[in-house]
Amino acid sequence: MIPKDHPRYRSLVARERIADAVRSGIVVVEGASAHGRGEAFDYLLGEETSASAKRAEKTAAAFLMAGFRPVISVNGNTAALAADEIRDLAEASGAAVEINLFHRSEDRMEAITAHLKAKGVSVLEGTAERLLPLSHDRALCMRDGIYAANVVLVPLEDGDRCEALVSMGKTVITIDLNPLSRTAQTATLTIVDELTRALPNITRACREMSPDTGEQLIADHDNTRLLYAALHTMQENLTNAMD
Amino acid sequence: MIPKDHPRYRSLVARERIADAVRSGIVVVEGASAHGRGEAFDYLLGEETSASAKRAEKTAAAFLMAGFRPVISVNGNTAALAADEIRDLAEASGAAVEINLFHRSEDRMEAITAHLKAKGVSVLEGTAERLLPLSHDRALCMRDGIYAANVVLVPLEDGDRCEALVSMGKTVITIDLNPLSRTAQTATLTIVDELTRALPNITRACREMSPDTGEQLIADHDNTRLLYAALHTMQENLTNAMD
Repeated sequence: MIPKDHPRYRSLVARERIADAVRSGIVVVEGASAHGRGEAFDYLLGEETSASAKRAEKTAAAFLMAGFRPVISVNGNTAALAADEIRDLAEASGAAVEINLFHRSEDRMEAITAHLKAKGVSVLEGTAERLLPLSHDRALCMRDGIYAANVVLVPLEDGDRCEALVSMGKTVITIDLNPLSRTAQTATLTIVDELTRALPNITRACREMSPDTGEQLIADHDNTRLLYAALHTMQENLTNAMD
Repeated sequence: MIPKDHPRYRSLVARERIADAVRSGIVVVEGASAHGRGEAFDYLLGEETSASAKRAEKTAAAFLMAGFRPVISVNGNTAALAADEIRDLAEASGAAVEINLFHRSEDRMEAITAHLKAKGVSVLEGTAERLLPLSHDRALCMRDGIYAANVVLVPLEDGDRCEALVSMGKTVITIDLNPLSRTAQTATLTIVDELTRALPNITRACREMSPDTGEQLIADHDNTRLLYAALHTMQENLTNAMD
């Protein structure tokens, strides 16, 4: 048990959740090392949501609310870390939830579907088809889900997948702690923040935002500026660490 | 198979080795996420050995060569990533090799011993005793190994362990990609570099260094300066990424 007053409590709980999820078959080992990479970048962010990330989260809410059949794409790490937060965001935004795995197997699809349903998430079910411009099973998605959506939230996504979705003309929102990753650099909107901090902020904005505010955020959106701001925050924290 | 001309070939091979080692029981899931954290920091180092890390590696060689019964402490990640490099360094420095696991179990001890022996590493064997000022099995080490050594190389070490060894008056050398970690901040000498780049550099220095050069490196050693230099390299790389 991690003591609740540990200064890095949330981070350690997340780490433990990922390890447990590997043991229960929801997350693959590669997902655990990807989580570790995220942890390191979050450490450099000071493990808190920056002002630019807050703005990115509000903008994400605006895109989702304005979207046509928006979809939240959920992989193993997202399911393990944030099933409750995904349920709340789906409800607040009206987005559908589709499971999309990089290391896809029927067993994992079933384990993750069961885990999400147990948390009250409505999961799109049916047959996936090869509809993305990618090779092999990486191309799989649902015709009524990601394929039909014009706005897709893909937290913790792989670079190839992100590029494929952008190339299809979709508005792609990602949550990625590494502002230099290909996913971060390719997405329409990149939220450089930790998943369980980011999702509730998007949910709150979906509930509270006026359509006018949303339109303005979309009109003013500049992803390069958001990425620079995230890099700048990391630089500042490194500088402070040297004092 | 990862293509040899991939710009991040070494990093991807290491990632794959860790995932395989989890599946074979040498590395625990927590080791995979720790590896991911290291990968992220190495990314910020540009995945190359900095000038200050080169100096740290030479100084490590000097400490090992001057040490009394020096020991290299090997955990699951180190065994999975660098068994060959550990063998070569043990030969060049005359240091003994002791297995020391944070998540200790008899099965893992046996799997790692077998793996190292298959690579030609001479591993200290015998009964471990609770000799470190730590609780539970974290206190275990060998009386003729780490306990007797005045210089210990502990790559990828946990902060509590590192502190315990320092508190016993030992010269503690670590290899840690996060210059802000407790291990990095506590050790006598911190090499901020990737394990399989660092170890061969230490080995080479053990073979080539004159005693006079070694004495001078030890006399001039300033760990705070090394840590600052590593943070500075990361800052510069972040700045370059923003150009």
